[in-house]
Amino acid sequence: MTDGLKMDMAGLDTFMADEFPQVAGNFAIERVDGRGLCLRLKVDEMHLRPGGTVSGPSIFALADCAVYLAILARIGPVALAVTTSCSIDFMRKPAAGRDLLCETRLLKLGRVLAVGDALIYSEGQPEPVARATLTYSIPPRGK
Amino acid sequence: MTDGLKMDMAGLDTFMADEFPQVAGNFAIERVDGRGLCLRLKVDEMHLRPGGTVSGPSIFALADCAVYLAILARIGPVALAVTTSCSIDFMRKPAAGRDLLCETRLLKLGRVLAVGDALIYSEGQPEPVARATLTYSIPPRGK
Amino acid sequence: MTDGLKMDMAGLDTFMADEFPQVAGNFAIERVDGRGLCLRLKVDEMHLRPGGTVSGPSIFALADCAVYLAILARIGPVALAVTTSCSIDFMRKPAAGRDLLCETRLLKLGRVLAVGDALIYSEGQPEPVARATLTYSIPPRGK
Amino acid sequence: MTDGLKMDMAGLDTFMADEFPQVAGNFAIERVDGRGLCLRLKVDEMHLRPGGTVSGPSIFALADCAVYLAILARIGPVALAVTTSCSIDFMRKPAAGRDLLCETRLLKLGRVLAVGDALIYSEGQPEPVARATLTYSIPPRGK
Repeated sequence: MTDGLKMDMAGLDTFMADEFPQVAGNFAIERVDGRGLCLRLKVDEMHLRPGGTVSGPSIFALADCAVYLAILARIGPVALAVTTSCSIDFMRKPAAGRDLLCETRLLKLGRVLAVGDALIYSEGQPEPVARATLTYSIPPRGK
Repeated sequence: MTDGLKMDMAGLDTFMADEFPQVAGNFAIERVDGRGLCLRLKVDEMHLRPGGTVSGPSIFALADCAVYLAILARIGPVALAVTTSCSIDFMRKPAAGRDLLCETRLLKLGRVLAVGDALIYSEGQPEPVARATLTYSIPPRGK
Repeated sequence: MTDGLKMDMAGLDTFMADEFPQVAGNFAIERVDGRGLCLRLKVDEMHLRPGGTVSGPSIFALADCAVYLAILARIGPVALAVTTSCSIDFMRKPAAGRDLLCETRLLKLGRVLAVGDALIYSEGQPEPVARATLTYSIPPRGK
Repeated sequence: MTDGLKMDMAGLDTFMADEFPQVAGNFAIERVDGRGLCLRLKVDEMHLRPGGTVSGPSIFALADCAVYLAILARIGPVALAVTTSCSIDFMRKPAAGRDLLCETRLLKLGRVLAVGDALIYSEGQPEPVARATLTYSIPPRGK
C-alpha cells in the first residue's frame, strides 16, 4: 500500500462496521492518505439541537472518530488506541441541512502517544465550524 | 432563592425537558447550589462502546450539559449560552454497569465568557474517570 | 496594504518594541500575510532547560506572541486583545542549538473572540516540536 | 514519610535548586501533602507585562512547575517526567504587586501518564486568575 498506510478506505470501513456497529452508519470515509483523512458525518435528526444546528457531542464524535481512523490507517487494525484527551473549539454555527466534513492531520505517531488535529466544515462552506486536537495512548506494538 | 441561584432543580429540569427533549431523559440533576451542581448520566445501551465502556462523546455530552446547567442556575433561563471550547482528559475506564456522576465548579461568570470545570465519576468509585473544562459565550444580559 | 492586513512586518516590529520592550529582542517576524505569520524565537541561554532543550514556557511564549501578532496584523494596533485560553501539546524534544520557528493560522476573527493555532519547529527540522491553539478576547472595535 | 509522599518540602526545594537553578529562586513551596501542593511565584519585574500584570508565560511556568513537583513528591526524584500537554484558561487580571499562589490537584498517576490541575490566585484574592490542566509522560519505574 502507498504512503506507508497499513489500511485503506475499504479496510477502515470494514473495521468501523465490525468494531463500532452502533455509529458506523453515521460516518463515511471520503479520502485517506499518508497525511490524514477526510471523514463525513451524515447529519440526521439525532445529531441536531433545537434550531437545526449540529450538537457539540456529535462534532466531538466526528473529530474523535476521524483522528482515530487516521491513526489506524498508519498502525493497522491490531492496535487498540484509547483517546486520552481532546481540546475542541466551536467557532461558527454549522449550516443547516448540510453534512459535516472533518479533515485530519497526524502530527505525532510516537511509541506510546499519538497526536492529531482536525478542522470540521459544513459541506460547501469555506470557514471551519470547529477545530479539535486529540491525543491517544497506543499500546506496545510488535515488530 | 438561596445562594444567588436564579433556577432551582425543578426549574432546571423543566428547562431541559423543554429545550433539549431529545436528551433530557438521559440526565438527572442530583444537586444544585451556588458553587455548581451534580448531574447523573443514566447509562444505557446507546452510551456504550464495545466492551461495555461509556463512549467518549457520551462523557463529553454529560460534562457539557452539567456545566451549562450550572451557568443557567446562576443567570436564569432567559440567557442563551453557547459552548465555545472544551478541554477534556479521559483518565480511567468507566466501571461497567454504573451510571456516571458529574460534579461541576463554576470558575468564572463574566460579562461575555463563563468558565467551569467538571470531574466525572463512575457511581460509587473514588477516582474520576474524566475531567473537563468548558467555556461558554454568554449574550449581553439586561439589568 | 494587501491581503486585508492593517499592519505589515515593520509595523508589527515597531508595535512589539514599544509595547513589549522586555521580550521584543527575543523574537523576529519572518513573514506575514493574510493567513498568518511566521515568528522566530532567537534561542539563547535563558530559554534553555538542563540538557540544552528549550523550556516549555519559552515555547508557550512564542506561540502566544505569534498568534497575537497575527491577530493585530488583521485588526490593527488600536485593539487590545487579551489571551483567554491556550491548549498546547509538546510532541518532540527541540533540536539543540537551533532557533524555533512558529507558523500560525488564524481560524476565527469574530466580534468578541479570535482563535488561532500554531505549529512550532526547530529550524531545519521537518517535524513539529509542539502545537498550540490560542483564544483571545478582543474589545469592541469602531467602524 | 506520611501521605505516601517520597519527597517532602526540603527534598523538593533541593531538587529544584539542583535541577532548575535558573528558575528555582522565583518559586517557593508553601505546602505539600498527598493531594498536591501550593507553590508561590515571587513576582518581580521580569514577570510583568506593561500595566503591571503578570505575563501569561509566567503563569504557565508556575502551573507547570507546581504540578511537576506534585508528581515528583509522589514518585520521587529518580523519575524524569516530561510535560506533554497543557490547557490553560486566563480568567481574571492578576492583582498588581502581589505574588501568585498555585494550588494543585493530582488527578491521575498512571503507569505512563500523569494528570494534574491547578488553580492560580493573586495572594489574598478569593477568585482564581487562571486554571490549568497539565499532562506528563512518565518513564518506566522500577519496583
